[in-house]
Amino acid sequence: MKPYELSLSAAARAIATKELSPVELTESVLRRSEATEPSLNAYVTVLADTARESALHAEQEIQAGRYRGSLHGIPVALKDVIDSAGTPTTACSRVWADRTPTEDSAVAERLAAAGTVLMGKTHTHEFAYGLITPQTVNPWDTSRMAGGSSGGSAVAVAAGSATFALGTDTGGSVRVPSALNGVVGLKPTFGLISRHGTAPLAWSLDHIGTLTRSAQDAALVLDALAGHDPRDPASIASPNKHSECALSGDLRGLRIGIPRNYFFEKVDAHVEQVVRTAIDHLGDLGATIVGIEVPLANYLLATQWGLMGAEAASVHEGTLRASPDLYTQDVRALLEAGQLITAGDYLRAQRSRTLIRNSWLRMFDDIDVIAAPSVPCTALGREQTKVHWPDGSTETATDAYVRLAAPANVTGFPALSLPVGYDDGLPIGMQLIARPLAEPELLRTGIAYENTHKVSGQLAIDI
Amino acid sequence: MKPYELSLSAAARAIATKELSPVELTESVLRRSEATEPSLNAYVTVLADTARESALHAEQEIQAGRYRGSLHGIPVALKDVIDSAGTPTTACSRVWADRTPTEDSAVAERLAAAGTVLMGKTHTHEFAYGLITPQTVNPWDTSRMAGGSSGGSAVAVAAGSATFALGTDTGGSVRVPSALNGVVGLKPTFGLISRHGTAPLAWSLDHIGTLTRSAQDAALVLDALAGHDPRDPASIASPNKHSECALSGDLRGLRIGIPRNYFFEKVDAHVEQVVRTAIDHLGDLGATIVGIEVPLANYLLATQWGLMGAEAASVHEGTLRASPDLYTQDVRALLEAGQLITAGDYLRAQRSRTLIRNSWLRMFDDIDVIAAPSVPCTALGREQTKVHWPDGSTETATDAYVRLAAPANVTGFPALSLPVGYDDGLPIGMQLIARPLAEPELLRTGIAYENTHKVSGQLAIDI
Repeated sequence: MKPYELSLSAAARAIATKELSPVELTESVLRRSEATEPSLNAYVTVLADTARESALHAEQEIQAGRYRGSLHGIPVALKDVIDSAGTPTTACSRVWADRTPTEDSAVAERLAAAGTVLMGKTHTHEFAYGLITPQTVNPWDTSRMAGGSSGGSAVAVAAGSATFALGTDTGGSVRVPSALNGVVGLKPTFGLISRHGTAPLAWSLDHIGTLTRSAQDAALVLDALAGHDPRDPASIASPNKHSECALSGDLRGLRIGIPRNYFFEKVDAHVEQVVRTAIDHLGDLGATIVGIEVPLANYLLATQWGLMGAEAASVHEGTLRASPDLYTQDVRALLEAGQLITAGDYLRAQRSRTLIRNSWLRMFDDIDVIAAPSVPCTALGREQTKVHWPDGSTETATDAYVRLAAPANVTGFPALSLPVGYDDGLPIGMQLIARPLAEPELLRTGIAYENTHKVSGQLAIDI
Repeated sequence: MKPYELSLSAAARAIATKELSPVELTESVLRRSEATEPSLNAYVTVLADTARESALHAEQEIQAGRYRGSLHGIPVALKDVIDSAGTPTTACSRVWADRTPTEDSAVAERLAAAGTVLMGKTHTHEFAYGLITPQTVNPWDTSRMAGGSSGGSAVAVAAGSATFALGTDTGGSVRVPSALNGVVGLKPTFGLISRHGTAPLAWSLDHIGTLTRSAQDAALVLDALAGHDPRDPASIASPNKHSECALSGDLRGLRIGIPRNYFFEKVDAHVEQVVRTAIDHLGDLGATIVGIEVPLANYLLATQWGLMGAEAASVHEGTLRASPDLYTQDVRALLEAGQLITAGDYLRAQRSRTLIRNSWLRMFDDIDVIAAPSVPCTALGREQTKVHWPDGSTETATDAYVRLAAPANVTGFPALSLPVGYDDGLPIGMQLIARPLAEPELLRTGIAYENTHKVSGQLAIDI
């Protein structure tokens, strides 16, 4: 196994025992990126020189006995809406063609403190406002889309050109590309990871999330990033140590809710079958499976779009007025539509969110985790704009991909997308959702699944 | 001194030592209300029978050795936007002509647990959306307005027809009538008193506050009401025991900031002089007086109105559509204007609020308390709709009264209005503002002032 193929957990163990040096790992990942980038285009910028310097520095620290922990010497990619001091943040937009931050984002700061090696900045749908990432290509089938908006981060992790990556998730932007590229995407509880120094899309829905090759890896990254930061007004303290989640593979006592409505509607038959098989397996591991009714399901998408449309238009108000032509057509249209939303509409969405959140909290009295598909279909063709369903209805690619992800943004509940199988060689993701700050339940479930399966952690290596 | 003339603190001491019985106190306050109500009209409903029952019950409990604390047996009035089970809440609106809640509000619940005697429900400007309370009359001069929106509560406390009262404050509605009627008004930190069971006006600005005859009394009431309540999403825990604030009258170590801008602009010369004299006295008591510049002052009122206008329109959306004619003309006009606010305007106000709040937090690095006028002029004539300033400008009564109060609503910082003198027989209020949860600093300052003056606690007794 080549170093770039190692999961974060495996690489960390090898580095801790000095079987593997950060320099060796980084060189392997850099070489891999040279092989994959021409066809996949996951990165806006690969920072080969600074990555080599960081790796050497990490190696020297570790040799000197100053091992910082699991992330020390591990190559990471950052979605290009997340600031790293001295490196341009472009948000893949002409609006930010000349923006080089002088300060680290909160997460870049924490990653640096943990001793990671910054590989580079990854492609995003412009300003994270879309589920496609048209610049980037799916490594499992280069005729397919990467998904978005954290498409570059997902593809880098799936292809082995980063050991892990960070993304942002406002309406599924971590979980959707994770599902489409066969990696593990974690969108934690709203506020658990500080967004300071990250381009906002919609303040009340924005989350930073992790893209890794296993749920075990996600736990390690979350521990390095979670915690209160006064610079993000939504930031909360982290009460849990996630990497110490139960590793027994035993799910006895866990109550898993399977939605009877919403989450399995307009879902591709293969995707549904693979996800239901994965759920059966969670039952075999000891979990109790119960049917649930998702409350206020008809309001979920209207609430997501009411909040996201208005807040995104407000974020971009100034530049949209000054230089609308710098935006791509699809993002400009969404922003301009958002400007038409009234305060009454917006506040109705906020009120609806409160009702949804309260009804979801009550639903979780009877369950610990919801299990459902992450996305209703595998990666669409790169030029495919519509999805046609057997009932005769059609949906835009964006609408299809945001649909099952939005509930965890509206509620702020943590959600994990886990690879659980393939259809025609394309990965399928199962989504697990838990109550606020119940990341340990999510990770325990994910880790139990992946410890008894071979699906998780597979690289898209046929490139 | 008749029982109705006693402050809450004095009455509580007399009840605790059994020199005064709750029945005697309640009868005195009820008789006083019979004398004052025909001319002042503070109450929508006086609950004479249930007040007598509660007083008797309190007396029996105290006789049996079950004294509940300072509020036991004390007559209280509730602004008629606050629910008390079994009694109509009218909000002084035809919209709520037939609304009798079956559940107590959070504050009614806490007052009942403290053993208070509910005197009745007091007049409010319709749905608390105005600074006038046209139904009610100022006890210091019956040709003058009570102010609002908690006008009935302020007049009841000023006239002796309640020993203390509760009100709500979205843009000054506790502090303005407190200042105009010569009582002490406390609007605590946003979230410190639960609003569950109270008619909302604008969720992000609404506070419940206390109207008393002294700052010492306010501390006693605040201790009974403060504390976390999951039924109000904004509710926070109370870290302080307010009735144990320093009573020494010594203000050494306290830094009082006197605004150079905003708070003394367009302020009546007499009001300014009386407030500056009161501030000098705080200096005599040992406080350090420093000049300060209020940051982002030009944005304060636009922010207040952007938030209040949009949120109030959203609260009333359904009834405004179904039966607009049930509202009074002035409130209907404000609500309909609020419907025109866009989500972009509203979010701009929210963003401006964040900037203001952060800059105010930095301002408080150098001071503990701001001292300024509560309102720019004493009570206007009952039919007076405009204020004319020496610079030739005019202002509506509402704009004048909301102007100096709004900053503490926009920021959510606690504020206290304290009677500090008279002009032509009409009371003048000084406003003290502190950082979040610094009610002890506010109360310490207020108590030090009133312990060395005769102004506070004077009843408007010439009726």
